Amino acid sequence: MRRTRLTPEREAELYEAVLDILREVGYDALTMDAVAARTHSSKATLYRQWKGKPELVVSALRHKKPIKLADIDTGSVRGDLLAMVCEADDAQMEQDAALMRGLGHAIHTNADLHRALRELLIEPEMAGMDAMLRRAVDRGEIAADTPALDYVPHMMLGAFLTRPLVEDRNADPSYLIRYIDAVVLPALGL
Amino acid sequence: MRRTRLTPEREAELYEAVLDILREVGYDALTMDAVAARTHSSKATLYRQWKGKPELVVSALRHKKPIKLADIDTGSVRGDLLAMVCEADDAQMEQDAALMRGLGHAIHTNADLHRALRELLIEPEMAGMDAMLRRAVDRGEIAADTPALDYVPHMMLGAFLTRPLVEDRNADPSYLIRYIDAVVLPALGL
Repeated sequence: MRRTRLTPEREAELYEAVLDILREVGYDALTMDAVAARTHSSKATLYRQWKGKPELVVSALRHKKPIKLADIDTGSVRGDLLAMVCEADDAQMEQDAALMRGLGHAIHTNADLHRALRELLIEPEMAGMDAMLRRAVDRGEIAADTPALDYVPHMMLGAFLTRPLVEDRNADPSYLIRYIDAVVLPALGL
Repeated sequence: MRRTRLTPEREAELYEAVLDILREVGYDALTMDAVAARTHSSKATLYRQWKGKPELVVSALRHKKPIKLADIDTGSVRGDLLAMVCEADDAQMEQDAALMRGLGHAIHTNADLHRALRELLIEPEMAGMDAMLRRAVDRGEIAADTPALDYVPHMMLGAFLTRPLVEDRNADPSYLIRYIDAVVLPALGL
């Protein structure tokens, strides 16, 4: 990643291919060979750019991430949460669900992937959500001692992950809006 | 399963082995050969008793299931939810988390397993939770038009599934009690 020798367009192409393969076969079955074949590149190039499979996958995930929580500041908690879930359309959410499924088992069994995922994606995301909630507390919208403040990430991610299991269908923006209004805001006392 | 030729003890042993293998390697890598080897039984016996791998795995999951939601009726929502989460100790929850991880990807890619899991586990569980909530509405504890009533399964399962991702540690009963008090009960207006 340091000292990029690929053009940004080529890099984006590679990342897209990695995510496609991840959705199709899952992390365990994804090989550097398959990425090389799909993208018509050499394995040497892949290993020169990225240290290995976990780094390549995490870089691809990070590159894709369309929503920067830090950029959202609508002035209300409801507005911020809706902005979070409404930037993605149904097709994107379906793709995100496929990605989560593709990563599923591996996150817990592969220490490198686990660490990379936490450092690059989960922790920055949590920090963004914390900042959003701290602003709401600062402007007096949420009481500082509201116990649910600690569980907003659990609620939001949980809504996304559990719908396929409970309702046998993927999360989409309109479902997430209903969930925010029915669960997240009342839990926060809003 | 119809016409059982195995003793209940032997059947329980087989199921325990299936769940162990599932936790260790995940659903995709679990083979009837491995189950046969681990349990010193013939593959013919396994196939005679269960139609195939999805049926064997679902039967094993169902056999293990320690908590019958239908049996819980403490007289309050908080009491019922706490009874649900407190029957399991930390070790059991860790095992359950390993099981969920082992099933992860397969639930979505294997139609047989998906259907069996829905019919045998998820739908009865949802029905039990619905009955619990209906009783709470009937005795006037929860208003019938509370929007969060539709999302109690999402909240409870979401709490369990998201803690490893958000906090990098598995759910345990004391965490789930905090979550119930901070999120589920306030969302229900309690």
